[in-house]
Amino acid sequence: MTRTTSIASPANTIPITITNIEIIDLRFPTSEEAHGSDAVHVDPDYSAACVILHTDSAHQGHGLTFTIGRGNEIVCQAIRSLAPLVVGRSLATIRANRRGFWRSLAQDSQFRWLGPEKGVMALALAAVINAVWDLEARVAAMPLWRLLAEMPAEELVAAIDFHGIRDAVDEASCLAILHANDPTRSERIARVQKDGFPAYTTSCGWIGYTDEVVRARCREALADGFTHFKMKIGQSLEDDVRRARIIRQEIGPKSTLMVDANQRFDVAEAIEWIRPLAPFDIWWFEEPVSPDDVLGHAAIARAIQPIRVATGEQCQNRVMFKQFLASGGMQICQLDSCRVGGVNDNLAIMALARTFGVPVCPHAGGVGLCELVAHLILVDYIRFNPTMDGRVCEFVDHLHEHFVDPCVVKRGRYLAPQLPGYSAEIKRASLEAFAFPHGPEWTRRAAAKSAQHNGASR
Amino acid sequence: MTRTTSIASPANTIPITITNIEIIDLRFPTSEEAHGSDAVHVDPDYSAACVILHTDSAHQGHGLTFTIGRGNEIVCQAIRSLAPLVVGRSLATIRANRRGFWRSLAQDSQFRWLGPEKGVMALALAAVINAVWDLEARVAAMPLWRLLAEMPAEELVAAIDFHGIRDAVDEASCLAILHANDPTRSERIARVQKDGFPAYTTSCGWIGYTDEVVRARCREALADGFTHFKMKIGQSLEDDVRRARIIRQEIGPKSTLMVDANQRFDVAEAIEWIRPLAPFDIWWFEEPVSPDDVLGHAAIARAIQPIRVATGEQCQNRVMFKQFLASGGMQICQLDSCRVGGVNDNLAIMALARTFGVPVCPHAGGVGLCELVAHLILVDYIRFNPTMDGRVCEFVDHLHEHFVDPCVVKRGRYLAPQLPGYSAEIKRASLEAFAFPHGPEWTRRAAAKSAQHNGASR
Repeated sequence: MTRTTSIASPANTIPITITNIEIIDLRFPTSEEAHGSDAVHVDPDYSAACVILHTDSAHQGHGLTFTIGRGNEIVCQAIRSLAPLVVGRSLATIRANRRGFWRSLAQDSQFRWLGPEKGVMALALAAVINAVWDLEARVAAMPLWRLLAEMPAEELVAAIDFHGIRDAVDEASCLAILHANDPTRSERIARVQKDGFPAYTTSCGWIGYTDEVVRARCREALADGFTHFKMKIGQSLEDDVRRARIIRQEIGPKSTLMVDANQRFDVAEAIEWIRPLAPFDIWWFEEPVSPDDVLGHAAIARAIQPIRVATGEQCQNRVMFKQFLASGGMQICQLDSCRVGGVNDNLAIMALARTFGVPVCPHAGGVGLCELVAHLILVDYIRFNPTMDGRVCEFVDHLHEHFVDPCVVKRGRYLAPQLPGYSAEIKRASLEAFAFPHGPEWTRRAAAKSAQHNGASR
Repeated sequence: MTRTTSIASPANTIPITITNIEIIDLRFPTSEEAHGSDAVHVDPDYSAACVILHTDSAHQGHGLTFTIGRGNEIVCQAIRSLAPLVVGRSLATIRANRRGFWRSLAQDSQFRWLGPEKGVMALALAAVINAVWDLEARVAAMPLWRLLAEMPAEELVAAIDFHGIRDAVDEASCLAILHANDPTRSERIARVQKDGFPAYTTSCGWIGYTDEVVRARCREALADGFTHFKMKIGQSLEDDVRRARIIRQEIGPKSTLMVDANQRFDVAEAIEWIRPLAPFDIWWFEEPVSPDDVLGHAAIARAIQPIRVATGEQCQNRVMFKQFLASGGMQICQLDSCRVGGVNDNLAIMALARTFGVPVCPHAGGVGLCELVAHLILVDYIRFNPTMDGRVCEFVDHLHEHFVDPCVVKRGRYLAPQLPGYSAEIKRASLEAFAFPHGPEWTRRAAAKSAQHNGASR
């Protein structure tokens, strides 16, 4: 095999084979301080099923998927089960047929019975696929967003599985979208390098926070330059109205306010609940009902306009996105980096959002979701949906200190990642400290609980 | 606690606590003979994640969920993870709040992130919930269908979680359905005791079978009294047309023929594919596209009438059933005993089917699905949808010999189960022989493969 030093596609020419998958069940005890709490997820321990692809070279691939505690071990088991489909593959053969590689995991003739393409299997797939893209970007010595920004349109389309969405977007129409955007692509690359992408904050509105904490967080976020703020709702309407008033007082009339019910309601209940909040000028109402209820979201959207319905963070795959977008039930497309089948499926979702003219405002937070969407939002802007108007990307200021290449948000904007890869690598010390259940942060807590229990029972 | 001998509700009064959950990864090497093969699942090894609830009494509860091989270990892990939510519970507290118990598993504040209510988590939930109902029916000394047939309407409604479907059916409208059917209930109980319920066969049309096998199987099924036959399609249109002709020749013009694509197509492709098959008089076209594509199914249904669109075996939960039924994308409701969250969710689905006037024709086959739906179809007929017209329940003649209380199909009809419980118990000898990977049936195969491999590599 010839080795060249071409920067454009070095991975083509370096023979790299995946030799082993390391899987870490990582959990942070965030429930202790109500960070991340909402009407439905009252006690999340922000967690990640982490994947490290080891190769026969010095390169590694880092990926993860996010969960909120219990059950992270199930996702780890699913990754372990998928591993034989990945170990032994060379990066060259994966790159030569990215769609085929993706389908070989997503549609394995036996595993697919467990989904297909949803729930635990989609989360596990995301972790693995994200790690493969991280590896490819590292080998190419580029941040992932840049690799995808510069990839020829035909190659990008060839990474997408259109099965199940061809009635909305197919190879030809996706290629047409990319080609239409190509002439202005370099301008957008330059712009994000300089200005990044607009962010919004959810950190001021967790449902478990006191009014004082909410006020303090709003002031901090305003001082940090944020103009878009989201609050969690759905446990008590009285509390929600009081907190909406507090936040609107703090952020003033020019800032934008969104609310998020995290699937708490039924359809009629959702429509009723939002009415007394409307006077506080709500831009979007997020996850009003079950994330599976396409037609329910569409009915709510018709009833509550001009407030928009936003959803997507628990939307399971491109086939569901297609229906949400086509039906009018998803007026803000909140794609998630780790819920669907990783980068490939998110490219399909960006193409769908473009097809239906719906703005992409990704979901983030959790563990690593901000790091990953910092790449995806740039890919969407540069290749699929070429505007920043009416677009913001979620930001939650938690747990970034554990990342080797943490996302950087300044003056309310995500800056473009600069290091090679997909920014998913977690510091080895953090992986060891918070490994569940045998890392020292967890054994220490277990010992403390056990001592407390023994003390109480005496 | 008082002990009574009341037959109507003995479980109320016997203190029984679940002390342990036994989980068995059971797999049958069905791929060796192409049994169960279709256009998408080309090599299924019919498997089950089996649950045995042990109690502090002599009673056990047996449940299972079906998979097709790889990944069964992931479902077993999910059951293991759910176990702490079940062990230590008493049957009395579960019976006192069946909906609450169901929700405590389906909507656990951390596990729900992995779904909610879909994929691996729904399959695992089904196995556990089915086992709990089996336990309750055994304690009541009744077959499950009879327990549910005789349960007061208010109690039946109290087992159903209406969250996510209240815009279609709620407590009040469900109760109205049950009350409307109550006056004629005993007639239907007597009728199923005498005549059972109509079945159809899929055993003649597996995609991996030769034409000769297809002919032979059709003749056997006709001789057995079947009048409804289903063939798998979707790998080659030429083959499909030839086999449809063969089957129609064999079964004659009076029998009914259905086809099943197992999600093989995109929307436009499905509509095209069915045209040349229409002359063979097709009653329903099953799973034409992704099981998530509500609006796609509805579009196909509009395009191919009078052929009906059937789906449901991979429909993940009641919220999806609601949309399929409301949109016209599900004209035959193929509920599955193990895909959604067990008996409770299936009661919701029966209420939805009744609300939208769509016939329930359950999916079965696999491992144990026939045993379980033999109960569910009677519950549906007796309590929710009181007719046998235009109704058939799938039957596949495989693997029943492993069950303690196998389903009985005679002259093309499922007979009403008679033994106490939900008929999910598998013989201990089978559990041991086919346990994966350490049961003798699997170690023997592994040794043979290894010997073959060593021979080949010499």
